[in-house]
Amino acid sequence: MLPAPHFSAFNPPRRILMGPGPSDVYPEVLAAQARPTVGHLDPLFVAMMDELKSLIQYAFQTKNEMTMAVSAPGSAGMETCFVNLVEPGEKVIVCRNGVFGERMRQNVERVGAIAVLVDNEWGTPVDPVAVEAALKANPDAKFLAFVHAETSTGALSDAKTLCALAKQYGCLSIVDAVTSLGGVELRVDEWGIDAIYSGSQKCLSCVPGLSPVSFSPAAVEKLKNRKTPVQSWFLDQSLVMAYWTSAGGKRSYHHTAPVNALYALHESLRLLAEEGLENAWKRHQDMHLVLRAGLEKLGLKFVVAEASRLPQLNAIYIPEGVDDAAVRTRLLKDYNLEIGAGLGALAGKAWRIGLMGFGARRENVALCLRALEEVLN
Amino acid sequence: MLPAPHFSAFNPPRRILMGPGPSDVYPEVLAAQARPTVGHLDPLFVAMMDELKSLIQYAFQTKNEMTMAVSAPGSAGMETCFVNLVEPGEKVIVCRNGVFGERMRQNVERVGAIAVLVDNEWGTPVDPVAVEAALKANPDAKFLAFVHAETSTGALSDAKTLCALAKQYGCLSIVDAVTSLGGVELRVDEWGIDAIYSGSQKCLSCVPGLSPVSFSPAAVEKLKNRKTPVQSWFLDQSLVMAYWTSAGGKRSYHHTAPVNALYALHESLRLLAEEGLENAWKRHQDMHLVLRAGLEKLGLKFVVAEASRLPQLNAIYIPEGVDDAAVRTRLLKDYNLEIGAGLGALAGKAWRIGLMGFGARRENVALCLRALEEVLN
Repeated sequence: MLPAPHFSAFNPPRRILMGPGPSDVYPEVLAAQARPTVGHLDPLFVAMMDELKSLIQYAFQTKNEMTMAVSAPGSAGMETCFVNLVEPGEKVIVCRNGVFGERMRQNVERVGAIAVLVDNEWGTPVDPVAVEAALKANPDAKFLAFVHAETSTGALSDAKTLCALAKQYGCLSIVDAVTSLGGVELRVDEWGIDAIYSGSQKCLSCVPGLSPVSFSPAAVEKLKNRKTPVQSWFLDQSLVMAYWTSAGGKRSYHHTAPVNALYALHESLRLLAEEGLENAWKRHQDMHLVLRAGLEKLGLKFVVAEASRLPQLNAIYIPEGVDDAAVRTRLLKDYNLEIGAGLGALAGKAWRIGLMGFGARRENVALCLRALEEVLN
Repeated sequence: MLPAPHFSAFNPPRRILMGPGPSDVYPEVLAAQARPTVGHLDPLFVAMMDELKSLIQYAFQTKNEMTMAVSAPGSAGMETCFVNLVEPGEKVIVCRNGVFGERMRQNVERVGAIAVLVDNEWGTPVDPVAVEAALKANPDAKFLAFVHAETSTGALSDAKTLCALAKQYGCLSIVDAVTSLGGVELRVDEWGIDAIYSGSQKCLSCVPGLSPVSFSPAAVEKLKNRKTPVQSWFLDQSLVMAYWTSAGGKRSYHHTAPVNALYALHESLRLLAEEGLENAWKRHQDMHLVLRAGLEKLGLKFVVAEASRLPQLNAIYIPEGVDDAAVRTRLLKDYNLEIGAGLGALAGKAWRIGLMGFGARRENVALCLRALEEVLN
């Protein structure tokens, strides 16, 4: 026998999470998650799943029947959208203005489809003019894919306009709402979004590990008429939905649901519904304005121009001569405060300060500003 | 705006989980999971991941470097093994003696590979003679895939013999250990298993949602020499391992780890290591013998012959004239006791009584026997 390792129980400190996610988790969510595990086919549990589904529909502002939480993180939510809808050889217009647009391209290519790239500079939103040009130049394109809120830069793109363009040119839209859901205006049905995914650990302030997704009737139609099977068994929506829908009171086992994580998501979305989406959007904006004023006083500059700045993800340039890692380490060690490093093209050049969900509170903003001031001086 | 639904917080009862999983979760695991969320790149968290990796290695009895937990349930662990190792057009010998062997076939075919089926009757183990015949008849086969402990029937197959056969015929072995890990003898290195996956919610008595996996050096070699990219971005081990390995102290972000679920898995494996694997195997067997004696006294018959019966998953035939659903509903409503329904070919014909991990305790066995006696009479 290989010998047993002996470790102590892991007792993490109480961090203040102001990075790009995971965000500060509601205490009620941590408590919900610790409730006793029940079976994934227990009638009480499946009744909770019905509630959860309607809570996800509310957060997305959609009546889409095919709405659920993927039993895995946001990247799996992204993959769920691409593998279910896109077939080998099909053309997808992929907008790339940060890390996650690039990840979309990789997803498209791993499906055996063709990605037509529309590149915009990091820190800028997706340009609708460039998108329309690509749609015109590629009349055989079937999809338009873009990131609503780029977590790597903090840029917000105009999802409403982009989805209208997609529709005008006969494309289905696939939208990354990992960082936008719950933090800024997002209206799936009104804007005509066809497939959307998010993550539990951003503006929903739930624990990381789940990905809410939703598919429009047109997307479901595309899925139903596929010529090839979905390449992923685990993410195949036509199989998963047999578990997420009570057909005549019956649910079919597909995989064992992450029961306790779903308790957590139910609780976080319940709290969002209690607050009201519009109130949550306003709170993010209000806290962003307080943070912005303080950061500007410290002489810090935003990566993204004001018009397309995300309130919940504030990317700021690291002042010249300042040691990136040393500052983040001091914030973490001395203040238990996590802010995010730069990612991709912004690695070493920017910090990312998150104001997400439960994290978008006055006390967090005050702490962050004061701690930054102390550490930078 | 679509209106906000209003629901109460979900307060599940304390069930006794004696189905095919999720099993009774250790109270310590539920507590661990509720600890404060930290960032997935927090130095304290990545130190915990190093411990977690060595705990998974211990549970699997392996020194495999490529050992980690997939951030999704066991079905995603299965898919991880197939999509990383098997390339389009390759031949895989798939042993099918229950639901999960059939799921393996579907995975193989969705990869664009060829499944050669070795069928054994439900409730019987995989027959090494039939497997050797298939290996002989298919000298171009690259893999042998089988389920160690069939959750749908309760049959244990001889993994040691089957993996030796795979090696003898130049195949890599892919083993489903979802229900076996922690409950019966399993020695990855000694038996020469090349790729293995399990689930958190069976004999580890953790919450559902994670899948420990491990790849032998030969499997890693196969992965490295692929001619085609892994079709799943989310499950691509060559990308994921950059996060699970500290290369010079640096970890690369791949996806946001399910932080709190990993706390839970760390705690459950820590408890297993404290007990000792061999003690845990013995405890499962001891409890099985007590349960068996009681079930036989009630006149109930096992689906699986004694020699290949799993201690942790006891499939018994439903006595004639007894209403399957009514009995399970009474057990759940009156006793808060969950036992499992039959699955696939055994639906409506058998019950599955789990004695998994923390659930394999004398008080659970006593309750189950007494409750069954009361409900059946």
